[in-house]
Amino acid sequence: MENVAIKACIGEPTEPTNIVIFGAGGDLTRRKLIPALVKMLRCGLLHPKSKIIGVLKDRSKEIWLDSLHQGMLDFAPEIEMHEEQWQEFSAMFKMVSGDLQEEKTYTDLAASLESLDGHVNAMFYCAVPPRWYTTIAAGLHNVGLANENAGFRRVVIEKPFGMDLESARQLNQELQELLDESQIYRIDHYLGKESVQNLLVYRFANSILEPLWNRNFIDHIQISAAESNGIEYRANYYEKSGALRDMIQNHLMQVMTLVAMEPPVEFTADAVRSEKIKVLRAVRPFKTEEIKQQTVAAQYGAGNTEDETLKAYVSEDGVSPDSVTETFSAVRFHIDNWRWQGVPFILWTGKRLPQRVSEIVIRFRNPPFNLFDTHANPPSANSLVFRVHPDEGIELRMNAKMPGLTTDIQRMVMRAPYSENGEDVSDAYEVLLHDVLTGDATLFSRADEVEESWSILEPVLTAWKDRISVERYRSGTWDVPGMDTLFEGCVSGWHKPG
Amino acid sequence: MENVAIKACIGEPTEPTNIVIFGAGGDLTRRKLIPALVKMLRCGLLHPKSKIIGVLKDRSKEIWLDSLHQGMLDFAPEIEMHEEQWQEFSAMFKMVSGDLQEEKTYTDLAASLESLDGHVNAMFYCAVPPRWYTTIAAGLHNVGLANENAGFRRVVIEKPFGMDLESARQLNQELQELLDESQIYRIDHYLGKESVQNLLVYRFANSILEPLWNRNFIDHIQISAAESNGIEYRANYYEKSGALRDMIQNHLMQVMTLVAMEPPVEFTADAVRSEKIKVLRAVRPFKTEEIKQQTVAAQYGAGNTEDETLKAYVSEDGVSPDSVTETFSAVRFHIDNWRWQGVPFILWTGKRLPQRVSEIVIRFRNPPFNLFDTHANPPSANSLVFRVHPDEGIELRMNAKMPGLTTDIQRMVMRAPYSENGEDVSDAYEVLLHDVLTGDATLFSRADEVEESWSILEPVLTAWKDRISVERYRSGTWDVPGMDTLFEGCVSGWHKPG
Repeated sequence: MENVAIKACIGEPTEPTNIVIFGAGGDLTRRKLIPALVKMLRCGLLHPKSKIIGVLKDRSKEIWLDSLHQGMLDFAPEIEMHEEQWQEFSAMFKMVSGDLQEEKTYTDLAASLESLDGHVNAMFYCAVPPRWYTTIAAGLHNVGLANENAGFRRVVIEKPFGMDLESARQLNQELQELLDESQIYRIDHYLGKESVQNLLVYRFANSILEPLWNRNFIDHIQISAAESNGIEYRANYYEKSGALRDMIQNHLMQVMTLVAMEPPVEFTADAVRSEKIKVLRAVRPFKTEEIKQQTVAAQYGAGNTEDETLKAYVSEDGVSPDSVTETFSAVRFHIDNWRWQGVPFILWTGKRLPQRVSEIVIRFRNPPFNLFDTHANPPSANSLVFRVHPDEGIELRMNAKMPGLTTDIQRMVMRAPYSENGEDVSDAYEVLLHDVLTGDATLFSRADEVEESWSILEPVLTAWKDRISVERYRSGTWDVPGMDTLFEGCVSGWHKPG
Repeated sequence: MENVAIKACIGEPTEPTNIVIFGAGGDLTRRKLIPALVKMLRCGLLHPKSKIIGVLKDRSKEIWLDSLHQGMLDFAPEIEMHEEQWQEFSAMFKMVSGDLQEEKTYTDLAASLESLDGHVNAMFYCAVPPRWYTTIAAGLHNVGLANENAGFRRVVIEKPFGMDLESARQLNQELQELLDESQIYRIDHYLGKESVQNLLVYRFANSILEPLWNRNFIDHIQISAAESNGIEYRANYYEKSGALRDMIQNHLMQVMTLVAMEPPVEFTADAVRSEKIKVLRAVRPFKTEEIKQQTVAAQYGAGNTEDETLKAYVSEDGVSPDSVTETFSAVRFHIDNWRWQGVPFILWTGKRLPQRVSEIVIRFRNPPFNLFDTHANPPSANSLVFRVHPDEGIELRMNAKMPGLTTDIQRMVMRAPYSENGEDVSDAYEVLLHDVLTGDATLFSRADEVEESWSILEPVLTAWKDRISVERYRSGTWDVPGMDTLFEGCVSGWHKPG
């Protein structure tokens, strides 16, 4: 325990803050937010004078706290929270009971905020469905809680930020009438993953990558998020969303911008985000007639693993039997700038695949010429693979001599785990909550980024809107129709993780 | 056993050959040559119809064979040669007794050579001191054994190839009057190390190294051979030689040429050696007045490890008490061509150092600019390290994010062992004997290379010839005077292995 605390204690200290959670009775709070706050407190990154204020209704404080405690035991057993420690921790909690639509809730909330070390700092975390974002922002605004005179006031919202360009624009506009853009933290938990941040350090703190990081040496780039699970209990959301909206528009396109961006002038939120938006603006617009070649949409059918039978998507609870929602999606992007012209960025994600794994694969060009007598075994393309999860780390795949009296070639894999000891790696929510508390918006999406990414995908969404059928793949396999075609012309083709 | 045989069996098959060893009663034969031949036989790379003919005197065949058998048990216990197998193997042996100066020895030898599958192929290995090389070549020549009409005739000689430019030229000239240059195999066991050969595969079978392999990205290069032993029983040779002649002129300069050379047109002996000689010709000549700054010479003094007291060099058996012979030597070379202008190549070697380790270190330039708030811990230079021995393998040292809520930087080391399983790696003598048998001279030094390297070092040898004192370092330490100065201006300085 002590050891963990000491190791993880790297990070800027934070000011005492009123941490307000809307939807404090929900899953996200129990599974992610409270465990992250406990860890931050333990290692000194959440100020011990801070308060955690849950906004919820129809529940007593006692029952609410019990459910949080149980959530900790269920979802974060590594924290080993004993009864006594929990009692101590729970003294930080307050509860405001009320409906999000009623002004009284916000006046009660305002009354509950405490002045801590002379400031009334507050972070408002919207752990509620997106339809409430504007309501909450308006509620805060109307009772003066958005006003930063007494301390900072930051509002955190979760994806989805709209369901298409129009709805995203509308949401941004509504929020920006009530809050300053600098107060809005659009959280993307993918960017909170330390391995994604390490990508930036890796690119810009080493001298040997930047010279190779362009169209002269890179053949193509793959950014993936494969899941082995199905949609679980999320049919309601997923039926309307699909894999493209759920993963590519936000997480994977955000990662793409970090991979592709020019070195920023400095490592600050606006400098980084200005480089990211330049990438999005350089993405080649999709032409309607090319969308079929540049995208893949597919849906999982039935299947089985060694142990169990896997349901088809259309047989999941809450899914329409004739649903054509895609549970697998892949898009081939082109970035038309000096650095990336001609280098495809292929982003793909899917559910019910053989493995849960997320990677960034930089596939370099083939060597121009094979000097060696390698028989049937020519050198393969070099790849640099960032494993985002699980087992965060970096792999460099190169060619080496095969041992023995020969110049035959074999694949050599150089590996470095991101941490020798998984415990050191912070959870994405810890990273991002800490960033909100210190006011560092580098890893959060700015309004223009969100709109730009929706704008890029608009032709795809339009083309897909009226489809009447969708390709199927067998659950638990990589046999996704169309992927081979999508990777046409890419050296060594689809990199299936494993 | 079977497993080893199958794995190592990669390599071109060889023709049945008369393998003649001059000095067959000596240490090299017992320690290296016979074990290598046994391994080659076992895995099918020495043709089982081959003969091994020892030339020696004053010993019966029985005693000679017993000493070889004992040598195998002592120096190559991994071979697990049982009595029965030894009996079978020893049936390949013949002995020719005689003095190297007498013509009868060579006529006896000629009579003992067998026609094998229609050819009288012969490899003549000179496992004798260099003063005998010309005598042997003349003996072979005079009785017609150098004539290749009936089969190939190849003569293998060991370093030293001369003690300076003049003696090397003389040796080459004498040998070339008796043999064709294509028949002379100047063995450099360093180049037989698989990790050195892997360097070539690594450079030319990967697309991402060649773009970085030049003055734009590399700050300097270190090539080292550290030994923990003292000079052992070799005082007689070492007193006249010293570390520069013993290691740098041959092994380390050969490795330097492989690191620095341009991609050859094809992977053949002459194409590769022509590129190597171009490197040597581009080495900037030493000016007498700069030699003090560009070289280090030092001698081990007394010292101790945890377990034992270490003698000073001057107290070793056979060493003069006022000897100024260097046991540590380092030279800073510059290669004046488009690729390497301004990149120092620092070659160093020494005895009685803390570790036995040989490495090639490619030290890249510092990142041009530090983007991150890294406090007292700026990014360090990237390095690519080829470990030649022990534990052959490759390491890439880069910077990564430190785990935790920070962009602090830590060193990240990506490693790949050359072989998962050390057994697969061939001994240098296996590699080189196999090359002689297949007529592949790629890893052997051509006459012009030898002369060129002596010619480069001539000013250093001249400057050192009349020295009356030498710096001392304590045995078992890295405290070698002058090394810090030698590395002046080199990013991150001397890379002490470990």
